[in-house]
Amino acid sequence: MIKIFGKNCIREAIRANQGLQEIFIQEEAYKKDYPFIELLKDKNIKYSLLNKKKMDGMFGTGHQGYGAYHEDYKIYGEEIIEMLSKSPKRVLLLDGIMDPHNLGAILRSVDAFGFDAVILPKNRSCSITETVAHVSTGAIEYVKIAYVNSLSVFVERLKKAGYWICGTDAKGTMEASSIDLSLDLAVIIGSEGFGMSKTLGKQVDFLLSIPMVGHVNSLNASVSAGIILHMLKK
Amino acid sequence: MIKIFGKNCIREAIRANQGLQEIFIQEEAYKKDYPFIELLKDKNIKYSLLNKKKMDGMFGTGHQGYGAYHEDYKIYGEEIIEMLSKSPKRVLLLDGIMDPHNLGAILRSVDAFGFDAVILPKNRSCSITETVAHVSTGAIEYVKIAYVNSLSVFVERLKKAGYWICGTDAKGTMEASSIDLSLDLAVIIGSEGFGMSKTLGKQVDFLLSIPMVGHVNSLNASVSAGIILHMLKK
Repeated sequence: MIKIFGKNCIREAIRANQGLQEIFIQEEAYKKDYPFIELLKDKNIKYSLLNKKKMDGMFGTGHQGYGAYHEDYKIYGEEIIEMLSKSPKRVLLLDGIMDPHNLGAILRSVDAFGFDAVILPKNRSCSITETVAHVSTGAIEYVKIAYVNSLSVFVERLKKAGYWICGTDAKGTMEASSIDLSLDLAVIIGSEGFGMSKTLGKQVDFLLSIPMVGHVNSLNASVSAGIILHMLKK
Repeated sequence: MIKIFGKNCIREAIRANQGLQEIFIQEEAYKKDYPFIELLKDKNIKYSLLNKKKMDGMFGTGHQGYGAYHEDYKIYGEEIIEMLSKSPKRVLLLDGIMDPHNLGAILRSVDAFGFDAVILPKNRSCSITETVAHVSTGAIEYVKIAYVNSLSVFVERLKKAGYWICGTDAKGTMEASSIDLSLDLAVIIGSEGFGMSKTLGKQVDFLLSIPMVGHVNSLNASVSAGIILHMLKK
């Protein structure tokens, strides 16, 4: 079980119609937010009213008056390759993303730009925490997430399934705008500190970079991912 | 005075050669990180060695062995319009960005894509906190930041100075890729919950949107900003 909170998170869980166990609403929100209450009544969903103190105790301070208990999200493993063997597809591989804010923001972009799944290695990755769910503002309800033993082995499987592998690196020689969007594409985003691993670097078909003109020449990992996913959307 | 921490933050403050008052390095980092120590010696910068407990006490847990006292960052006011009256220029206006993680990530994109300044309204805006400085990983050393009384009034000043105003909204009818990049451009990014204010909406010359295909159809504010700034870079 995982706690989710924030109006958008709860609304998307209701819309996705999956995994909600119990909904809690703060009395003040209940009195003001007619459309939300109508939605609950429409869908015949039970809810409990709580005062602010109880809500804060259960969900911390960022709940905005809305919280819920939610089943653990479905997490896939190596078997996701079978789903991904049907085209046309887009896959995102995250190599060493540890920050839950970044992972949550990336899940929103994955949903927004029609990518089919996010693949993370079991080691050196952020887990699916309450912060990830909250920052994703509901996108987590729709995105397929898989943890695999080795990204490198998984990349070989994707290649056999017909995918072209796009790495990202400051030393990249191509812009995403020059990629043929009719291809099945797997995009690798590396960690902020260390980038993509050397092993993966040798496996890529295209090495993309985002041209920059500033002093620092690095972007937040979720911003880099957003820019690349936007340019490679289906 | 503001505390900054994290290797990249400190390194950029050294490179920018401004505002550093005192540098603290954890003993373990000192022993391992020869290039960094060489940089300090090269620039003739004084530093103190501390043990982990003292560093944690001063800088929390995210310092990676590097911390510093830094002068308050230079913050501009309405007078920044004079600097912005020389072309060609790019300006970002943030209408209601309250989250320090988002503001820090946005400062990195502003630097990376050659925007000249960020303008925020004095009310309903995130201040320049230690978190903002840290998340910006040094970009804050280079980006001009101004707080003004009214974004709406400032937009009129920008118009008089020859700027074209680009709003962003889900209802927008243009993609950023269709904007003439030879123009002087001011881009408005609204808050996540409420978007751009109605008043500003009436002042824009172009209303941009980012086409999305997902279920949730919203992006993290720093990701939206990154995508638009990338497409409108000088």
